[in-house]
Amino acid sequence: MTNATGMPPNDRPVVFLLFDDMEELDLAGPWELFSVWHDRFGGPPCMTVSASGHAVRARYGLQIVPDAALADGPEAGVLVVPGGDGSRRVAEDGVILGWVRQTAARAEHVLSICTGVRILHAAGLLDGRTVTTHHSALAEAAAWPGVTVREARYVRDGNVWTSAGVTAGMDLALAFIRAESGDATAQKVADFVEYPPR
Amino acid sequence: MTNATGMPPNDRPVVFLLFDDMEELDLAGPWELFSVWHDRFGGPPCMTVSASGHAVRARYGLQIVPDAALADGPEAGVLVVPGGDGSRRVAEDGVILGWVRQTAARAEHVLSICTGVRILHAAGLLDGRTVTTHHSALAEAAAWPGVTVREARYVRDGNVWTSAGVTAGMDLALAFIRAESGDATAQKVADFVEYPPR
Repeated sequence: MTNATGMPPNDRPVVFLLFDDMEELDLAGPWELFSVWHDRFGGPPCMTVSASGHAVRARYGLQIVPDAALADGPEAGVLVVPGGDGSRRVAEDGVILGWVRQTAARAEHVLSICTGVRILHAAGLLDGRTVTTHHSALAEAAAWPGVTVREARYVRDGNVWTSAGVTAGMDLALAFIRAESGDATAQKVADFVEYPPR
Repeated sequence: MTNATGMPPNDRPVVFLLFDDMEELDLAGPWELFSVWHDRFGGPPCMTVSASGHAVRARYGLQIVPDAALADGPEAGVLVVPGGDGSRRVAEDGVILGWVRQTAARAEHVLSICTGVRILHAAGLLDGRTVTTHHSALAEAAAWPGVTVREARYVRDGNVWTSAGVTAGMDLALAFIRAESGDATAQKVADFVEYPPR
């Protein structure tokens, strides 16, 4: 996950992978925080992709139209993978997994929210890594060879960042912004969305 | 806002108003919590409407396709109005305001998130009410005749519920679920999305 282009990370977007039956807030929490970071405080731009480029229907019925199909998106500086029931199907979809693997290899950082960690695992990105996930999936992840599971709000292991369930994605996003842009900027983002950091 | 149909509130949906330049998380936070309430714990169904029935583009670019146009949606048991910069335009849109007024008159409850309170005000729903909003809009709301503003995470005044900025919508949603279904159910919803109540 080196910066193969030699461009500073802010020149490449934060790319959010959309898929059917993803959990709505797994996407929208980090999307909001990263977007405020971009809009007000100099963070990288944000965009969404789905396998086909057509709308996805999230777990509770929200229909979201992506900015691009996987094949048509720009190179990601940061890849964000939400979770939800649909992560099970994505974890068996060779086309999406191939894109995740290729994208991760060129991105600076890879983030998963909630059970999105299943997709990182299925793409072969977690060997030797420590991760976390939604409480309902901790046992599942603990059975993956070469993966260490920790129960935490979020875990950073090098450039692989994973969060606990749903709302923990917001804490992960804030921690990421803090690491990239410092405490003061992260605090301003949190203040704008009136999110007292945990 | 009496229950004109005589139906129990759970038979009528929670209807979320979508509009261009709404703040993404104003929608998605309450949407997630109400949807989990419906999906797992017997809460009412949730749906989205927009003026035309076509997709809206939220403040940071997320494109969301509504379930119906205003004219085609079912009668709302609960109306949820997000905020964001787009609330200024909606507050001058007679068609949407007319729908909000009519919908509110038949709904059990009306909720606004963040600066969505502007839309309730413009629809004439706040006379004599105490409300809150995003910190950037507290002074604006304090100038509305007949409206009392309180700086709080959320405010319930009868069947008008208003929240502070963005993430406070989740606390409002949890407070609503608690009032309708009790502490234990609200706690189960919070536990599922791993949101420690504030």
